[in-house]
Amino acid sequence: MNIVLHGVAIGGGIAIGRAHLISRSMDDVAHYTLDEEEVPAEVARFDEAIRATRKELETLWGSIPENAPAELGAFLSLHIMLLGDVTISREPRELIETQHCNAEWALKLQCDALVSQFDAIEEGYLRERKHDVLQVVERIFNNLDGHTPQLPSPDDLVEDAILVAHDLSPADMVYFKESNFAAFITDVGGATSHTAILGRSLDLPSVIALHHSRELIREEELVIVDGQQGVVIIDPDEVVLAEYRRRLRAWRDARRKLSQIRKSSALTLDGTPIELLANIELPDDVDGGKLLGAVGVGLFRSEFLFLGRDTLPTEDEQYEAYRAVLTAMKDKPVTIRTMDLGADKNPRWLNHGSAENPALGLTGIRLCLAEPLMFRVQLRALLRASVHGKLRILFPMLNSLGELRQSIAQLDYAREELSDEGIAYADVEVGAMIEIPSAALVAGSLLKYVDFLSIGTNDLIQYTLAIDRNDDAVSHLYDPVHPAVLKLILHTIKTGAKGGVPVSVCGEMAGDPRLTRLLLGMGLRKFSMHPASLLAVKQRVLTTHLDAVAPIVARMLRTEDPDRIADLLEQLNRDDESS
Amino acid sequence: MNIVLHGVAIGGGIAIGRAHLISRSMDDVAHYTLDEEEVPAEVARFDEAIRATRKELETLWGSIPENAPAELGAFLSLHIMLLGDVTISREPRELIETQHCNAEWALKLQCDALVSQFDAIEEGYLRERKHDVLQVVERIFNNLDGHTPQLPSPDDLVEDAILVAHDLSPADMVYFKESNFAAFITDVGGATSHTAILGRSLDLPSVIALHHSRELIREEELVIVDGQQGVVIIDPDEVVLAEYRRRLRAWRDARRKLSQIRKSSALTLDGTPIELLANIELPDDVDGGKLLGAVGVGLFRSEFLFLGRDTLPTEDEQYEAYRAVLTAMKDKPVTIRTMDLGADKNPRWLNHGSAENPALGLTGIRLCLAEPLMFRVQLRALLRASVHGKLRILFPMLNSLGELRQSIAQLDYAREELSDEGIAYADVEVGAMIEIPSAALVAGSLLKYVDFLSIGTNDLIQYTLAIDRNDDAVSHLYDPVHPAVLKLILHTIKTGAKGGVPVSVCGEMAGDPRLTRLLLGMGLRKFSMHPASLLAVKQRVLTTHLDAVAPIVARMLRTEDPDRIADLLEQLNRDDESS
Repeated sequence: MNIVLHGVAIGGGIAIGRAHLISRSMDDVAHYTLDEEEVPAEVARFDEAIRATRKELETLWGSIPENAPAELGAFLSLHIMLLGDVTISREPRELIETQHCNAEWALKLQCDALVSQFDAIEEGYLRERKHDVLQVVERIFNNLDGHTPQLPSPDDLVEDAILVAHDLSPADMVYFKESNFAAFITDVGGATSHTAILGRSLDLPSVIALHHSRELIREEELVIVDGQQGVVIIDPDEVVLAEYRRRLRAWRDARRKLSQIRKSSALTLDGTPIELLANIELPDDVDGGKLLGAVGVGLFRSEFLFLGRDTLPTEDEQYEAYRAVLTAMKDKPVTIRTMDLGADKNPRWLNHGSAENPALGLTGIRLCLAEPLMFRVQLRALLRASVHGKLRILFPMLNSLGELRQSIAQLDYAREELSDEGIAYADVEVGAMIEIPSAALVAGSLLKYVDFLSIGTNDLIQYTLAIDRNDDAVSHLYDPVHPAVLKLILHTIKTGAKGGVPVSVCGEMAGDPRLTRLLLGMGLRKFSMHPASLLAVKQRVLTTHLDAVAPIVARMLRTEDPDRIADLLEQLNRDDESS
Repeated sequence: MNIVLHGVAIGGGIAIGRAHLISRSMDDVAHYTLDEEEVPAEVARFDEAIRATRKELETLWGSIPENAPAELGAFLSLHIMLLGDVTISREPRELIETQHCNAEWALKLQCDALVSQFDAIEEGYLRERKHDVLQVVERIFNNLDGHTPQLPSPDDLVEDAILVAHDLSPADMVYFKESNFAAFITDVGGATSHTAILGRSLDLPSVIALHHSRELIREEELVIVDGQQGVVIIDPDEVVLAEYRRRLRAWRDARRKLSQIRKSSALTLDGTPIELLANIELPDDVDGGKLLGAVGVGLFRSEFLFLGRDTLPTEDEQYEAYRAVLTAMKDKPVTIRTMDLGADKNPRWLNHGSAENPALGLTGIRLCLAEPLMFRVQLRALLRASVHGKLRILFPMLNSLGELRQSIAQLDYAREELSDEGIAYADVEVGAMIEIPSAALVAGSLLKYVDFLSIGTNDLIQYTLAIDRNDDAVSHLYDPVHPAVLKLILHTIKTGAKGGVPVSVCGEMAGDPRLTRLLLGMGLRKFSMHPASLLAVKQRVLTTHLDAVAPIVARMLRTEDPDRIADLLEQLNRDDESS
């Protein structure tokens, strides 16, 4: 049949396999009449489902991934709140008692009533909340069955199964990791939704925002998922299948080829050495082989230590985590970013209020400077760990010289405390994260206080363009090669070079091989990225002659015309295939 | 006694008067037992109060001021939602029926129960929502009395009454406008809360965030409110009172003096003419005398037309509004900004979803380009009105050359349509709003498409510093003279000058007399501001010699050190008193 569907590409290559559809429990609910004596047990079953759902949601709240998008926290708050609504948690109970119906039916009746109330609301924002009601009720349904039926046991699945779902929650994705799925397809989601972000880190071929997928794909049907192009082909004919088998082989070959350069030095064709570093999120990320030849850790996001727990981690707990990474990395440099909490990462123990625009609120170093005692614990732990390796401390979300001075004063204070207590610490390098336009524009004033600068392109782009890339309505406007973004990155690189302060890029731009030559041409010599991108970027370095890219990049930096920049970028990458 | 309290200064000068405390209806609720036959009437009274409260909230929703802060819409949504919760809207009814108690008591019992449920929640965000419950219940209480008792009738108040309240809602503030209050004091609120913003536009001396004011100030007590310093003095002694009477006179004198320069031309001491324009929000704002000598309208925010209604305004409705302003202003220029909706201004008819960071979402020109048919209606209405005066069209929230080109294409399309229909329109100037860092950085690429540029400093500062100034947790970091902000403004002014394209500033910086000389020194010659600031800024222009400020401003623009900038700014304004 060759039905071709287009969705949002999440990457992860190509998969060919059999569809496994995940149905929703609410889709078909039957009505039973209970005998009088069965009623108390049914009420108890209902109460137990509510209790279990609450526990689930609270557990989920406690295990929000560090790199989860902003929506997640607010979403879960709302769900917990909705679960407490009497319409959902109490009135079905009364229906069971008065009408002697089964719990599912009672819940469905109440849910329908609530949804129609929401449907009747004129105002858009409120009306949209019916989806939240449905999601919460769906969870209760699953718990009424006493298990989580929407995901089959990993053991039950055929090899190369392709999961087709309305949506996959972070909890579902974690469950995934344990099983043998080859790919997934969802009806909803945006390129930077939590589904997408988690999907990418699992490196599974995946296509999202493929509306009505479950109506178009049948169980056990043969499906091709091209996570690179965002294409799904249902019931492919032999010609198409042969072509995709060829592509799958080519893709696997390219992967294999990449693995061969793992031990090569990252030198450009003209012999310029480039430092390729890894971004990590957990101490385990440095375990044997995972860093794929990185010459150090360019960004260790320390947030994992602070999220998903009820209290602030102690100095000793933090020390152990930092020591583990430093010890594992031996003499290689390890850049640890101090806690970048707030905005989309709000640990429970922080009791942080909600902001209208969390990304423009109390986050990163602002939060640390507002909570100096909390900050001091981390700085002490870092200094104590410094004797075990080559530590560099990086302050996130700096906005001004004043904030940098205050941060360094806090570090000095921690040093004094340790000295007074006779506790050893080594010299550490100190760096400033450039991820707010203001910081890039005043980078010159920061130089004399720091040993290095690190450009966080994700946030820098977000603020420079006033675009939340997690917001589906505008994410298409998020543009890493917007001339304004290039100007700020160039200004930072040049300012660092002039002042003799090394500059690295640790945002996603550093891991995008399409941008490697542009950044090299702008003078960047240090790239830090997700380990999964290291080999592809190294290959690009190995095939680049700086003299060849210089004139093209110079033209890119002179123009303010986005179309011209796009053309020149293509020119810069033209030998892609030949390399 | 001279009890001196410090709060957040909202401005509006000094007031000396008698305190009038506004109590909350919920503070003391008595319990009555009803006779059986009284119950139905009591239930009806309760139902009527719920109905009236819903109507009130919906009316309020419909009259959200255009310049209201981001919180307001979301807040009201939540309140309408809470009102629909059975705990509040239905269960008290059952209590009245079963326990034969009065409606107030039943409501209070349910409210207490609900608040204690919220109190028991561990997570901060949800727990905070109890205040919303209290605000909604407070409204129901007021409606149970059949009137709005928290505000006395304007006629009942003594002259110079000083209102002391826990908080004042926008609805309360509108009510205010009708009465003769001299000043107000509230327990809660931030410098940029809706209370503060509305207070400022009413030009009443006011101090907010003065915790426990109602416990410290007694009814009828003599109180001094210094809205400039954020100081409240309770029961002042004669010496203090005499001093503040002197200050009040001086303040009134200064006001009078200012009114004398109303008709003077805005020339610097060296004879350079400066254009002082008015920002307006409603067509009525241009009525006789209100513009205080402005030479034109530098910014007409067209949003008022789109908010507080159920449908998009028709082309004719829009045309009438634009024509009214153009006709009233005769030959003076009128800059009308196309609708800047989204973010904190979401009209009901838009059905706009909620974003995690609305300020980084689908707003301004992004929304217009996403809804071209809606945009076209406004462009047609503007072009049709153009024959009645000197119209300039300004596009808000531009991010890139691409968006500007698309906006102009839409305008051209509207022109073609009108030509085809034989409808007349005049030549209009077209301008780009510079309020996102990216737009400032690529201002050069916009020049050949526009007749003027207008810098919106409020948003420009917000995005450059990644600070939401409406967020109390970080608003102290909002800094108009941050060196990065000055760089972007300077770059825009210089780029415009080089390309022969006039540049104005229409954000709040333009109306701050402390910054007038800085902006003059940066080369700015066009200032557009709230009419209330016009005379103070004009006075500053009249006392400024450009040659005298040039060297100081040059030093301010060279440094990236915020402390140095603050020192130089003080130097720039040193002759304040003498002028």
